[in-house]
Formats: sequence, structure tokens, C-alpha cells
Amino acid sequence: MGKKKQIKRHYKKAGLPPGTLVHIGERKLESVRITVIDYDESSFQEKQVANIEDCFEFKTTPTVTWINIDGLHDVEIIEKIGKHYDFHPLVLEDILHTGQRPKFEDLDNYIYIVLMMLRFDDQSQAVLSEQVSLVLGRNYVISFQEDVGDVFEQIRDRIRNAKGKVRRMGSDYLVYTLLDAIVDNYFGILEKLGEKIESLEEELVSNPTDRILKQIHNLKREMIYLRKSVWPLRELISGLERSESDFIQETTNVYLRDVYDHTIQVIDTVESYRDMVSGMLDIYLSSISNRMNAVMKVLTIIATIFIPLTFVAGIYGMNFNPEASPWNMPELNWRWGYPAVWLVMLIMTGIMIYYFKKKKWL
Amino acid sequence: MGKKKQIKRHYKKAGLPPGTLVHIGERKLESVRITVIDYDESSFQEKQVANIEDCFEFKTTPTVTWINIDGLHDVEIIEKIGKHYDFHPLVLEDILHTGQRPKFEDLDNYIYIVLMMLRFDDQSQAVLSEQVSLVLGRNYVISFQEDVGDVFEQIRDRIRNAKGKVRRMGSDYLVYTLLDAIVDNYFGILEKLGEKIESLEEELVSNPTDRILKQIHNLKREMIYLRKSVWPLRELISGLERSESDFIQETTNVYLRDVYDHTIQVIDTVESYRDMVSGMLDIYLSSISNRMNAVMKVLTIIATIFIPLTFVAGIYGMNFNPEASPWNMPELNWRWGYPAVWLVMLIMTGIMIYYFKKKKWL
Amino acid sequence: MGKKKQIKRHYKKAGLPPGTLVHIGERKLESVRITVIDYDESSFQEKQVANIEDCFEFKTTPTVTWINIDGLHDVEIIEKIGKHYDFHPLVLEDILHTGQRPKFEDLDNYIYIVLMMLRFDDQSQAVLSEQVSLVLGRNYVISFQEDVGDVFEQIRDRIRNAKGKVRRMGSDYLVYTLLDAIVDNYFGILEKLGEKIESLEEELVSNPTDRILKQIHNLKREMIYLRKSVWPLRELISGLERSESDFIQETTNVYLRDVYDHTIQVIDTVESYRDMVSGMLDIYLSSISNRMNAVMKVLTIIATIFIPLTFVAGIYGMNFNPEASPWNMPELNWRWGYPAVWLVMLIMTGIMIYYFKKKKWL
Amino acid sequence: MGKKKQIKRHYKKAGLPPGTLVHIGERKLESVRITVIDYDESSFQEKQVANIEDCFEFKTTPTVTWINIDGLHDVEIIEKIGKHYDFHPLVLEDILHTGQRPKFEDLDNYIYIVLMMLRFDDQSQAVLSEQVSLVLGRNYVISFQEDVGDVFEQIRDRIRNAKGKVRRMGSDYLVYTLLDAIVDNYFGILEKLGEKIESLEEELVSNPTDRILKQIHNLKREMIYLRKSVWPLRELISGLERSESDFIQETTNVYLRDVYDHTIQVIDTVESYRDMVSGMLDIYLSSISNRMNAVMKVLTIIATIFIPLTFVAGIYGMNFNPEASPWNMPELNWRWGYPAVWLVMLIMTGIMIYYFKKKKWL
Amino acid sequence: MGKKKQIKRHYKKAGLPPGTLVHIGERKLESVRITVIDYDESSFQEKQVANIEDCFEFKTTPTVTWINIDGLHDVEIIEKIGKHYDFHPLVLEDILHTGQRPKFEDLDNYIYIVLMMLRFDDQSQAVLSEQVSLVLGRNYVISFQEDVGDVFEQIRDRIRNAKGKVRRMGSDYLVYTLLDAIVDNYFGILEKLGEKIESLEEELVSNPTDRILKQIHNLKREMIYLRKSVWPLRELISGLERSESDFIQETTNVYLRDVYDHTIQVIDTVESYRDMVSGMLDIYLSSISNRMNAVMKVLTIIATIFIPLTFVAGIYGMNFNPEASPWNMPELNWRWGYPAVWLVMLIMTGIMIYYFKKKKWL
Repeated sequence: MGKKKQIKRHYKKAGLPPGTLVHIGERKLESVRITVIDYDESSFQEKQVANIEDCFEFKTTPTVTWINIDGLHDVEIIEKIGKHYDFHPLVLEDILHTGQRPKFEDLDNYIYIVLMMLRFDDQSQAVLSEQVSLVLGRNYVISFQEDVGDVFEQIRDRIRNAKGKVRRMGSDYLVYTLLDAIVDNYFGILEKLGEKIESLEEELVSNPTDRILKQIHNLKREMIYLRKSVWPLRELISGLERSESDFIQETTNVYLRDVYDHTIQVIDTVESYRDMVSGMLDIYLSSISNRMNAVMKVLTIIATIFIPLTFVAGIYGMNFNPEASPWNMPELNWRWGYPAVWLVMLIMTGIMIYYFKKKKWL
Repeated sequence: MGKKKQIKRHYKKAGLPPGTLVHIGERKLESVRITVIDYDESSFQEKQVANIEDCFEFKTTPTVTWINIDGLHDVEIIEKIGKHYDFHPLVLEDILHTGQRPKFEDLDNYIYIVLMMLRFDDQSQAVLSEQVSLVLGRNYVISFQEDVGDVFEQIRDRIRNAKGKVRRMGSDYLVYTLLDAIVDNYFGILEKLGEKIESLEEELVSNPTDRILKQIHNLKREMIYLRKSVWPLRELISGLERSESDFIQETTNVYLRDVYDHTIQVIDTVESYRDMVSGMLDIYLSSISNRMNAVMKVLTIIATIFIPLTFVAGIYGMNFNPEASPWNMPELNWRWGYPAVWLVMLIMTGIMIYYFKKKKWL
Repeated sequence: MGKKKQIKRHYKKAGLPPGTLVHIGERKLESVRITVIDYDESSFQEKQVANIEDCFEFKTTPTVTWINIDGLHDVEIIEKIGKHYDFHPLVLEDILHTGQRPKFEDLDNYIYIVLMMLRFDDQSQAVLSEQVSLVLGRNYVISFQEDVGDVFEQIRDRIRNAKGKVRRMGSDYLVYTLLDAIVDNYFGILEKLGEKIESLEEELVSNPTDRILKQIHNLKREMIYLRKSVWPLRELISGLERSESDFIQETTNVYLRDVYDHTIQVIDTVESYRDMVSGMLDIYLSSISNRMNAVMKVLTIIATIFIPLTFVAGIYGMNFNPEASPWNMPELNWRWGYPAVWLVMLIMTGIMIYYFKKKKWL
Repeated sequence: MGKKKQIKRHYKKAGLPPGTLVHIGERKLESVRITVIDYDESSFQEKQVANIEDCFEFKTTPTVTWINIDGLHDVEIIEKIGKHYDFHPLVLEDILHTGQRPKFEDLDNYIYIVLMMLRFDDQSQAVLSEQVSLVLGRNYVISFQEDVGDVFEQIRDRIRNAKGKVRRMGSDYLVYTLLDAIVDNYFGILEKLGEKIESLEEELVSNPTDRILKQIHNLKREMIYLRKSVWPLRELISGLERSESDFIQETTNVYLRDVYDHTIQVIDTVESYRDMVSGMLDIYLSSISNRMNAVMKVLTIIATIFIPLTFVAGIYGMNFNPEASPWNMPELNWRWGYPAVWLVMLIMTGIMIYYFKKKKWL
Repeated sequence: MGKKKQIKRHYKKAGLPPGTLVHIGERKLESVRITVIDYDESSFQEKQVANIEDCFEFKTTPTVTWINIDGLHDVEIIEKIGKHYDFHPLVLEDILHTGQRPKFEDLDNYIYIVLMMLRFDDQSQAVLSEQVSLVLGRNYVISFQEDVGDVFEQIRDRIRNAKGKVRRMGSDYLVYTLLDAIVDNYFGILEKLGEKIESLEEELVSNPTDRILKQIHNLKREMIYLRKSVWPLRELISGLERSESDFIQETTNVYLRDVYDHTIQVIDTVESYRDMVSGMLDIYLSSISNRMNAVMKVLTIIATIFIPLTFVAGIYGMNFNPEASPWNMPELNWRWGYPAVWLVMLIMTGIMIYYFKKKKWL
């Protein structure tokens, strides 16, 4: 789940002067894809550009411009944007060094937001993550993603078709819708994990195996990771809401509060799931013990009944010579000797069974 | 316990523009039922209306109007109310998307409260939940419920019969009584869970089975869920009390503080129960181990006594030919051979029993 | 420990209008007992009155009046006091509904305090609790108890005999001494529980049985309950100290701080005991496992030594016909066959014992 | 570790009027020992006095006076000091009632500090504690100890020999050096406990016995106790540093901050040790389980190999009469019957051993 | 991991007057090595000096001077620096007493920072630590290390080659780069530990041995230690950022915030790792139990099948004399006796196997 990788990436950078631009992360794309959407209430324009310079013309227009960049390996492009929009070197560094802790920074002429977009990969049954950086300035939003494919498609549709009020609002509202889409997507992830938990829970008591143990362990790790991605979001969004930046209008705050509520709900659910998963391990252990107990009982019942009987049979298998002495196993010559032994054995078995019944082992 | 469902519902909505009105939740009713109660100290009127428009006439009257809506699937009705009472689109969204985290929002011309009404279903022995939204405005209270049937019947009686002081007070006092009824009802839920805990505790040590394990696990989950419903209530009610809204009069605050105290008491009890339930699992495990120990002791005692005896019997069951050599099992021809073997066996058994007594296994 | 009862009581009330006076709790007394102590530095008067109205004359006197009421089932009496001293309906409700969370409320013309008086019942070895409500007004203190018998006897003696400075001080000092007596009494309870913990700890490792397990579980529950009673006290007393009520004089604050310190000490001890008790369960489990290990070793040693020996004896108990072939068990006819078998067995036993010694099982 | 005693002591007092002076604690000394050290930069005087009145002359001198009192059982002496130096009755009570929670109180004309001086008793391998009360006034420090013997000897030496700057500083610096000596001494205690933990850790995995279990349990209790003594120190010293008392000069604050840092370090270490000790129990349990597993494997291997072999031998020990029918055990008369049985047995053993190897049990 | 040593060191000092300069720690070097780097935007000078006095000339120059001292055992050198730069005695003490808690102190004419530089020793697979003290004054930085070798080599290169902007910035920026290098280095440590965790996790379920248990325990201890080193860093750096010292310029704050973010990320990761490691112990225990269960099943299956069969064989090994009575084991003379016994045994085995299949033990 990218855990170790995140650490590794960062390490490569250690020792370089701060602000050195090196992409840290896997190169996920062949070439960088740049898309521009420019709109206001009446106009709309969408195009894919080859050179980042083609976007710069939109900077001064009063319309809202959303530049989306998929792929971070081409440091030069990022550098050009940074120069044109006057970004702080550390911001550019954070965009390139994937594996950042979600945070929000209010700089003078723009707001920088970095967070995790999660995706549940059905094939590997694992949660995959991608770092998304958002820069909100006056009339523009620039989003940086590691890979093509995101949760923003419906937002693009809404802008194209002027659905909802996004076309009537400013760039801050656009950032809100992007955040909202990312957070809403977490619910989908949680649903998948919830289903995994439920199906594990059913197997847990009835059939505790090594496989279940491994799955619980994996779930636990995913929960730890998810938690690490989600907790800082709370701070991020409440900070955004409370920030006194000019770029965020009063009317957008009520929407941010709504995202905030959703974030709290996600956190609550993650915490509940963690509780459940960590309870599952205890249940597992109890269940194994229970099963072992059952195994032991079977062994004990069989052994306790048959070992004494075998002993009795062993006694009369001894070869003491009856002719040497009248005391040597006279039973062997009794008329009812053999049936009597059977009787003794049946009585012994009966006592044992009664004892086990009383102990509720049977 | 509605856990997974809650997530599922939300997910369906992901991607839609904020404020889109879609009912998310199970349709629990055939048709929406709208009831209006209008009263002041001297007058009282109660009726069930077919069209929501029939309620609107009460908006401007100085009397307190309580509109109760059972069933959320008819989005049109909710939309009409929203338009007439000028609700924010996000509030309408929250009313329709059941599974909200309990919260309170103070908007300019009304206060929005959403929380969970719980019900213990005796048949399934599970806690069921229903989202209740309350909107408090000047002289009116509108309550939205998912289903017919609630904990407010006694409040209606009190209003009808002018019992207590509810008829003399304003709409804020009505909201207080509704909140009070919901919170008081939690005590009933807790009582039921308390009984379940007690009965489990008795079985726990005496008879730890897989069934008990499953019940502990279920209780644990219900506790996690209950906790998630109850904790935010604290914030909700203290926020309500501290809010400087015009709709809440000074005299009502002392009552809200009382509900707050009850909420704290509910939270305390939920936390105590959680502690108890999570302690039960440890007790269970210890109990299982104890029981396994007892089983092992029985096996060990039987095996330790009879295996050596069987060995002795086995010795004298060997067929060494006494005629081939005087060293071959001369015991078989001794006069007291057989009784001597019995004696040896009895002594061995005695030593074992003494050993077990000393070890306190017997 | 009254846990479930507390919930039950409250539930009975659910649905009634707030302020409805119904006694919730067990009726512990035949008839209500009302005692009045009236004093100042020079005068002292103590009497038991039959009618509550007989106390009212003291209200206007400048002397300090302490009215103590044992028994809460006679709602009428409580109502009369409430009317005469002008108590808020919710305060009266709290007095009657036993099982309140300890709290303090500063109303305009009096201060209301509710807390738990604990008692260790030697017979049932359980902690019993009784709700005590104190109302502090100008020159008077009214205390409400569920039952006759309390921890205030020494305070009465001090007032009677003018010991200490209680006779020279006002009603706030009297409330302080009452609180001090209740909190000091907690130390006695803790001592009893401490003794129980110590005696359990000794048995824990040496003799872990089901009975110990049950006792640990009970202790755990009592700790949970005690904690619930004690934690809110901290808030209560620090609130009292910081309150700016006219009824509490500056000089009393240093005494309240002393009670506060004691409360913290009680909480610290409760938390330490909780830690100890929850550690005991782990020790218990380890101890059981240890014991099981010892049992297993005995079984294994016996089985591992004798099963192979029995096999050897079994071999020579086979009835292959030596006459049918020279290969059929020629050993049986050897001169030293039987002693050789014994030798083989002794060597096998020796090897086993050496192996067990090396493994430190013997 | 004095845990229970602390509670007991307090209990004896319950019910007495506040400020009643009774010594609560063990009488550790025959007679009270009073020592006076009086110094300024140029002069120095040290003497042991028989009557407390002999100290009072120093009160008005401008030199710093340190009165040290060993032994608290002579209530009269404490009372005389209290009267002469004008101490609040509750302060005197706290001095006498050993087992106080460490705290600091800023009264008008003096500062009262109470804390625990710990000592590691090599013989009983336990941490012993002694309550130390310090009263800091203008130009004087009075220290109260339960017993002769403390950690202040080096401070006395420094004063005698005018080493360091203690002779040049005021009474507040003296209090600082006393606190510093007590806190520094905690590091010694922690070192001893650290050694105990390390030596236990080595035995833990290699040889988990009941004795180790008891030692872990004792360590756990000592940690709980130590924690209770150390945590309040943090508050105490930071309170002292922030207090605006006239008796503490600005220049002393930097030294107090240093003690504060040490206190935090002690707390950090106590918490780390707690974590380690509580981890040890889990390791212990795992280790026991591991060992049990090993025992079980030996038993299973032996039983699984020999029980089937014994069965085979048992078969050919049956006495079916070959003369009665050709189907009755013809094997017994075969030429290669006996070697064939051995072969079968060897093959069975081989299969078993192969199976165990595959399962990695051998 | 230096844990115990840290305590030991401190203890040696207990009792000495505060500010006494004694080096506490291992002497890691033969002789102290002093290096001076002096630079501004245009000039650069680097030299290794033999006497500390040779550095003092740089104090008054306007260029930034970085004096690095490797080796702390020569108290005289430290004293001379302290005197020349006017350090507080307690600061000198902290420099020499290695094992300090990371902290930052803002004194009037310099800022003192102490923290831990960690190193992962590949040979012992352990984390080693070295205390680094930094003193930031106007135009100078003095760093004290215990040993030669650090994580600052790349910074020296950057200064030498005027890479990045370090040459253009003041001494506060130099301190930032030093802090940044230390914190960035933690990521490397975490990566190593992450790899250890991953490789343990793989072995955990498949092959739980004593060795794994020891490694988990060691990891746990390293986590506890790491946590103790890292948590105070948060406070340190945020304090530095918020400090209003003249030595830290406004422009440096944004860089400090970046280090702060990294510190939070390190803490988050340490906490995640702790969670994982502590989860591993539970998994380990579950895994052992699982394995024991498997062992038990094998034993039970073998015993349950063969013990009854052996009993049957034992029966017909009895020597009852058929001639003494027709009731004495007539089966032995039946025509199909022997095959019938085999049939009975096969049926018994079949039933057992069916039973085990049904129980899913096979």
C-alpha cells in the first residue's frame, strides 16, 4: 500500500538543497497531459494543450481557468508553471515529492492544498493512492495529479453542461467541488472495506484459518494507512474554512463546512472500522482457542474411555502360568470370566460417559 | 445495524452537484404522512393534511406550529417546504441523505438539527435507527422522520391536554421536549443492552461457547455504533445552548442544560458498557483457557495412570519361551507372580494419585 | 452495583413532562425523617420534626440551619420544601431521580450539588451507593438522602460540642465539611478494594481458578462504576471553588482546594487500581497458560517414555509361530532374550530422560 | 510499595475536623532530629538543636536559614513551628499526613511544596518512598522528612565548603538545589529499574517461568506507583516557575526550567519503561505458547509414530485359533511373516518421519 | 540502544552543583576535532584548527561562521568557548551531558538547540544515536557532536560550491539546513525499520519462531526509543518558528515550517509503525495458536483412530481358556473370526474418518 515506497522516495532526496526540483515517485505516465477548462457563466472552453505556455494566456482573463496536469515526471513543465505563477520553491518541491502529508498553505497570492486521492483496485483488493496538489489563485485553479484518471469527471460534465451552480461561482467554488469529489470518493473506499470486514466477520468464528489471519492483518494495515491519509484532512479543511484569504468568498464557507462534516464522518467511520478490525483479532484468538478446546475434548474422551479398557485387555493378555500356582490368573479358567470382563468394561465406559455428560463435554 | 447501509447510501450520491435532492435511504413508507399541530396557551388544533401546501397558512400565525413529516421518499414535498421556508439547499440535502452525523447548524432564519432516534427491536434483538431532522424557526418546528412511529406520542398528548407547560412556551421549548424525548429514549436502549450484557456475563464464565463469542462480538459492534450516534450529541446540545440565536430564549437554556446532563450520562454509560464488553472478551479467553486446562488435566491423569500400567501388562504378555532359558520370564511361573504384578500396579497407581493430589489436580 | 438499576429508574420516567415529581429509586425507608440543626457561634439547637413546615421558621433567622431529610419517597414533602425555598422544578426532579451524575449548579439564590455517598457492605463485599443532594442557600443547607445512616455523624458531634471551627463559620463551611466527609469516606472504600486486590494478587499466580476470574471481573466492574462516580467530582469541586457565588466566602476556598486535592488523589488511586486490575487479567491468562504447560509436560513425559516401551512389549507379545519358520521371532527362544529386552527398554528410558533433562522439562 | 499504606493512613483521619494535627504514617524514628544551617556569602553556621525554639532566633536574621526536621511523630514540635511561622492549619495537616500527592501551594507569606523522595532498597529490591515537605519563606527554608537519611548530603557539603554558588544565592536557590537533588535521584531509581527490566528481558524468551511472571507483575506495580509520584511533579515545578511569588527571583527561574526538563525526562523514561513492561507480558505469553507448542510436537511425534506400530503388534498378539479355520491369522505361520511385519513397521515410521519433516516439526 | 546508558550517565552526575562541567557519555574520540567554515556570498574559508582560540577571531566578522566540534571529552575546550561566547553554565552542562531530551532554549544573545542525530548501523542492525547541540548567535553557528562523521557533508559541499542559496543567507538559514539534514536522515532510518517490519511480517504467519519473537520485541523497543527522540522535535521546531528571536528572520520561517511538516510526517510514520509492530505480536500469538491447533489435530486424529483399534486387538489377545467354558472367547475358534475383526476395525476407521471430514479436520 505504498507505505514503504513513500519513505523510500523521500529518502532519495535527502541532502539536496531545499527547493531542488526532482520528481520523487514512480513515473506513471509516458508523457505529461495538460488540460485547460476556462469558463464563466456564459462562456466555456476546453482544450488539451501540448505546451504549458499555451495555458498562460488565460491567467489574466476574468474567467475561471482550471489547468489540470496529469504526470509529474517532467520537472521542466512544473518549473515553468512555478515561474509564471510565482510559486514558492518549497511548494514546487511538495508538488513533485509525492507522499506528502495532506496540508493546506495560505501564501500571499495563492493557496496551496495537497491531499490523497484514493482508489480501490478490485483486482489486487487493495487501496491505491495518488497525490493531488491544488493551487487556488485569483480566477484560476491548477491541479497536479500523478496519473491520468480521477474522480473529477462528473465535475467536468457539470461545467460543460452548466449543471448546478459551478458556472456561476468563482475559482474557490471549483476547489470546493474538487475537494468534495475526493472526500465523497472516500465513502466508496470505506464501503469496499466495510464489505471486506463483514465477509471476514462471518468466516471468523465459523472457520478461523491462517488465510483469515493474514486478511485481518492486511485490513489492519490498510486502516492504519487510511487513517494517516484522512486525519490531516480535518485540519486542512477547517483551516481552509477559517482562513481569511481573499480567494475564498463568504458564500463558499457553508459548502466547505459541508465537506468538513463529511470528513468528520469519514474519520468516524475509519475509527469505527479500526475498532472492529482490532476486535476481530481477539475474536479470532478466542475462536481458535475454542476450536482447540473442542479438539482436546475429542482426544480426551477417546483416550479416557479406551486407555483403561486396553489396560484391562492387557491384563488378561499376560502369560502367567496357571499351572505354576493356583494364584496365577485363575480368572482365565472361570466359566464366566470372559463375559465378566466385558461387563466390567461396559460399566467403566458407562461411568466415563456419565462423567463427560455431567461435565457437558458431550 | 445499518452500518454498511449508511455508507452505501452516501456513495450513491457521490459525483452529483451539491444540493441535488435525491432521497438516499430505504423507502420505508407507501406515502408521505403530514401532520400539523398548531397551538398556543388557549387554542389547539391538530390535523393530518394531504398536501403540504395546506400547512403553509400556519407560517404567519403567532401560534406555535409543529409540522411532522413521516417519509422522505417524496422529494417534491421536501422541495416545496424548502422553497416556502427558504431553506439552504445543503440543509435539504442533509434531510434527505439519511445517515448524517448528528449536528446542529445555526442559519440566519432557522436552526437545523439532525440526530438519530434509536429503537430496540425485540424480535431481532438489534438496535434500529431512524434519522430525525428538526428545523426550528420563529413560531414553527418542522420535523422530518423516515418512518411512521416515534417517541413523541406523550409530547402530543401533553400538548393536546395542556399538561405541563409546553402550551405556555414557544417553539424552542417544543424542540427541547423533542430532544429530551429522544435522549430519554436512549436510556431505554441502554437498559436493554445492559440486560444483554448481564445475561452474557453470567454465561461467560460458566459456559463459554461459540454462540457467546458471537454475541459478544455483536454487542461490541452495537456499542461502536451507539457511540458514533451519541458522542456528537454532546457537541450538538452544548452548541445549541451556547448559540446566540434569537429563537432560543434564555429560560429554555436551563432545560437544554438538563438534556445536556442526560447526554453526558448516556455517553458515560456507553463508555462503561464498552469497557465491560471489551473486558468480557478477555474473560472469555481466560475462561476457555481454564476449561482447556481442566480437559488437559483429565486426559493427563488418565493417561499417566494407565499408560504405565498397560506397559506392565504388556511385559507379561510377551511370549519369551521359558523353556529355552531359565532367564526367560521366570516370573510367569512364580507362585505369587500374578498377585505381585497387581500389587506393583496398585503401588504405581497410589504414587500417581499422591502426586496429582500434591499438584492439586485432583 | 446498582448499575442496571440506575438505568431502569430513569427509564420509568421517560415521556413525562420535565419537572414532573416522581420518586425514581427504591423506597428504602418506611417514613421520611427530618432533622434540623440550627447553630451559630453561641447557640445550638437540634430537633427531629414530624412536619416539614416546622423547619420553615428557621429560614429567616441569621443562624445557620441544616435540614437533613432521609427518604425521598414522600414527594409531597419535597414539593413543599421546593415551594418554600423557591427551587427550580428541574432541581426537584434531580433530587428525586436518584442515579444522577455528580454535578453542581449555581442558581441565583442557591447552589445545588448532587453526588454519590458510597458504602462498602462487608456482607456482600460490594460497594453500595446512595445519592446525596445538597442545597446551599444564605444561612441554610438542606441535604437529601435516600436512607437513614450517613458519614456525617462526626460532623454533627463537632457542631454539638463546638469542636473545630464549624460553629464559627457560615453555611458554605458546613457544605465543605459535608463534601469533605463524603470524599474522605472514599478513601475507606478504596482501602477495602485495595485489600481485595492484594489478596487476589497473591492467589493469582499460585492458584488461578474460575473463582478468581469471577472476582477479577467483579472488581473490574466495580472500578468502572467507581470511576463513573468519582471523575465528575473533580469538575464539581473545582467549579464550586471557581464559582463567583455570594454564598461561598473567600476563606472557604482554601478548604475547597483541599477537598479538590483529595478528589484528585482518589481519582489517581482509582486509575492505578484500574491499571492493576486490568493487568491482573493478563497475569491470570499467563498463569493459566503456564499451568497448562506444566500439565502438558507431565503428559508428554509419561507418554513419551511408556508408549515406545509398550510397543516393544507388544512386539514380543505377537504370536508368530516359530515352528513355521526360523525367521519367526527367534528372539523368543534366545537364552538372554528376555533380559536383553529389559536392557533395551532401560536404555530407551535413559535416552528419553536425558533428552527431557536437556530440554529442562525435568 | 506503600500503596495500600497510603490509603490506610488517610482513612484513620476521616471524620476529624480539618486542620486537626495527627501524625499519619509509620513512626520511623525514636526522637525528632532538628538541624539548622544558617549562611550567607561570608558566614556559615550549622548546629543540631534539641528544642525547636532554638531555631526561632534565626527567623529575623538576613542570612538564609535552613531548618531540617527528621521525624514527624512529635506533633507538638510541628505545631510550634506552625505557630511561630504562621502556617495555615491545612499546611500543617499535609505535612503530617504522609502520602500526599506532590503539589505546590503559594500562600501569602510562604510557599509550600510536598513531594516524594524515593530510595531503591537493594535488599528487598523495592522502591521505598518518603514524603518531603518544603516551606520556602523570606530567608528561610524548612524541610520536613519522615526519617533520617536523605539525598541532600552533597548540598550540605557545598554549603559548608562554599562550593558552587549556593552561598551567594537566596533561599529560593536552596529550594531549587533540594528539588534538583530529589529529581536527579529519580534517575538512579530508573537506572535500577532499567537493569531489572533488561535482566528480565533476557530470561523472558529463553526461560519463561512463574517467577518471571511475578517479577513482571511487581515491576508493573512499581511503574504504576512511580508514575503516580512523578506525573504531578511536572505541574508542581512548572507552577513554581510560573508563580509570581516574591520569594522566587528571576535568576532562579532558568534553574527551575532545568529541573523541569529533567522531570519531563524522568516522565518520558517512566512511560517508556511502562510500555516495555506491558509489552513483556505479551512476549511472555507468546513465549509460553511457543514452548507449549514445542512440548505438543514432541508428544505428537512420539504418539503418532508408536501408537500405529503398537496397534500392528497388537494385531499379531491376538489369539485366533489357526486350527479352527484357515482364515484365522494365517500370517503367523508364513515363512516371512515376522520380518514382513518389521518391514511394514519401518515403512510406516518412514512415512511419518517424512510427513513431520515436511511439516517442519523435526 | 543506548537506553540504559542514558540513564547511567546522568546518574554519575547526581549531587554535583548545577553547572559543574563534567562530560557524561562515552569518550568516542582520541582528540577533539575543531573545524571552522566562514563564508558570505562572495568569500569562503574552511580550516581545521588545533586550538579553540583560533576560532575566536571570527566572532566579530560580519561573515557567517560555522564552528563544528567533534568530541566532547575535553571539558576545557567547551569551557573556553562558553566563556568567550558568554554561554549560561546550564547550557554548557547540557552540551556535555549527552542523553538530553531534544529541546530549544531562547536565551538573550543566542539560541540553544539540542537534538538526536540517528544512524542505522548495518552490522548490528540497530539504530545508534549521537547528541548534536547547536548554538545560533548573530553571524555564528556552533555545533557540538560526540563523534566524527555526520549527515552534514552535503551541506558543506553546498557551501563550498555556493550551490543553492545557503551562501546568500544568514546563520539562521544554516541552522535550518542542519536541522533539515538531521530530520531528512530520519526518513532513512524509518525506511530501514520499515524493511525490517515487512520482512518480519512475511515470516510471521508462515513460520512463527522464538527468533521472530525476539526480533518483534527488539523492534518494539527501538520504536519506543525512536518515539522518545522524535516527539519532542515537534515542539522544538514549532517553538523555533514561533520564537520572536532577532536571530531568526521572517524569510527563514517558511523553511522551518517545511521542516516542521517533515517532523510531523516522521512522527506519523513512527506511530503507524508502532501500531503495526504491536499488531504483529497479536498476529504472532494467533499464529502460534493456529499452529498448535494443527498439531493437536494430527495427534487427535491418530490417537482417536488407533487407540480403539488397539483396544480391539487387545481384547483378542486375552488368554481366557476356551476349554474352561464355552463362553470364554468363542470368537477365537470361529471360522471367520479373524476377518470379522478386520472388518470391524475398518468400519470403525471409516466412521472416524467420516467424523473428521465432517468436522473439517481433514
